[in-house]
Parts: sequence; C-alpha cells; structure tokens
Amino acid sequence: MEIELQRKLALLLRETRTAALGTLRNGAPTVSMVTYAFAEDFSAIYLHLSHLAQHTQDMEKDKHVSLLVAEPDDGREDPQTLARVSIRGYAELIPLGAPGYNLAKNLYQARFPQVMSLFEFGDFELWRITPKGGRYVAGFAKAFNLTADALKDIASL
Amino acid sequence: MEIELQRKLALLLRETRTAALGTLRNGAPTVSMVTYAFAEDFSAIYLHLSHLAQHTQDMEKDKHVSLLVAEPDDGREDPQTLARVSIRGYAELIPLGAPGYNLAKNLYQARFPQVMSLFEFGDFELWRITPKGGRYVAGFAKAFNLTADALKDIASL
Repeated sequence: MEIELQRKLALLLRETRTAALGTLRNGAPTVSMVTYAFAEDFSAIYLHLSHLAQHTQDMEKDKHVSLLVAEPDDGREDPQTLARVSIRGYAELIPLGAPGYNLAKNLYQARFPQVMSLFEFGDFELWRITPKGGRYVAGFAKAFNLTADALKDIASL
Repeated sequence: MEIELQRKLALLLRETRTAALGTLRNGAPTVSMVTYAFAEDFSAIYLHLSHLAQHTQDMEKDKHVSLLVAEPDDGREDPQTLARVSIRGYAELIPLGAPGYNLAKNLYQARFPQVMSLFEFGDFELWRITPKGGRYVAGFAKAFNLTADALKDIASL
C-alpha cells in the first residue's frame, strides 16, 4: 500500500470520533453508534459504555465485534469514494483497577473531556477491543486487507 | 415519541446517503459502509452491490442484517447526542426482471445518478432489505424501539 494511503488511514482513525460497532445479538449482527479512542500504537480501541446498553450486553455474551470508521459524507458526487476501515476484533471488559484501566481512562477522557462525570457512575464501564485484522477501502476499487501488525506499523506514521 | 423526533428520524433516513451494514461472517458480525436508497414508505431499503463484495457473499449465506444510519459528526461537544437509527432486517436479492426490480433501480438511480453505468455491469446486483424493527436514539438518553409499522407511519410525515 502506498505510504500516502497509509497516512490517510492513520489520520482517519485519529480524527474520527464515532464508529459503527457490530455485535452479535440472538445470532444476528446488530450495528450501533459508539464513540471511541484508539491507543497511540493502534494496538487497542477503547469504548466507554453503559452496562445497561444492548451492545454491552451483546459483548458479554460474545466477544466478536467489528468496528467501522468512515470518512464523513462531504456531499461529493460519488459517496463510494469515501475512505473507511472495518476492523474485526475481540472485546473485553477492563475492570476498575485492572492493569491498563488508568491508561485507557486517560486516553478516553483526553478525547472526550465532557464524559469525565460519567466515570463516576458505577453504571459505565471501559472496554478494550483488540484488533485481529481489517479491511481498508481508501476509495473506489482501492481496498486492502490489514493485519493487526500492519495497523501497528501505520500508527508510527 | 414526540412528533418532532419522528420528523427528525424521517429526515435522517431521507437525507443520509451512507450507512453501516452489519452482516454475519463465519459466525462474527462484520460492518461495512454502503450507500442506500429508502422506499418512499420506508417499507424497504435498497442496496446496489458488487456480487464479489464480501458483504454480498455474507448475505447470500445469512439474510440477517443490521443497518445503522447516523447523523454526521458536526464537531459538537458531545458526539453521544448525535441522532442515529439501527434497523434490523432481512436481505434478499432482487433478480433482474423480478417484480420490484425497476422500482428499486429507479429509486436508487434517482439518488445516485453517477452509478447509472454500474447497472450495465452483470457484476452488480440490487438487494432489498425488509425492516423488522429497530432502535432510534434521538440524542442522549432519548432512545426508542421501533416496529416496522412505526417506521412506515413515520414515512408519511
């Protein structure tokens, strides 16, 4: 993949704030909107979710998830040329006080300062998604498969 | 649900051009970006997809899908207040010449005139998603379950 397209992907993951999270519910895929923070080295994606939310309950039952991060539609003639990346991975709860909890909390709060107060609610939990691979569509007919290692390499750009 | 929130939903579904499609792949949810056209009465969602695309092959194996349509991030302080709707449904191929094919083609082409030429490729197919229900989040702590009938009622607004 050209270095320019790799840089575009790094920027997309860092600048976008919302993603579409796919979880499994009663054997069917379900997609919901989440806000996310990426680890600096792209080795993990952090979500801060209500324990009561349906997607949270889905992940408790089945850890397989998919996360789509897409360039916002800017009204261009052909929206199929918008860049997007679909990352598949495994979700796990980060218990309060577990290793990595504070790192994830700090990353998330740096990105979404307005959620500070939600960390005081016992109802909200931090989740880590570990990428296993993905597919990056940089535009029409420009699609690339990604490994978790390729994603980490891109984080250094 | 207040009429104002219903109108907001109708507008969201009509004005947005891209959605996150959740399909099932090897037992795991997978999310990809698609462009879509809604039937006037919100009874169906039409997609125009390459037969070779992974999501198309997923739907051939399992018809359960989910479609997330979200308000684009406008940079507001709290992106959790963005409106979005997640629709679950069943996907089916509309074979060339089958009842409804021309209706769907015309709707889709009216929305995406630049794809006209793709209809000449044998590789592209029209798919119909029939909504079975959904969940509408109009903003923070404003969430509503939707039946397929409620969706049709909203189409008349």
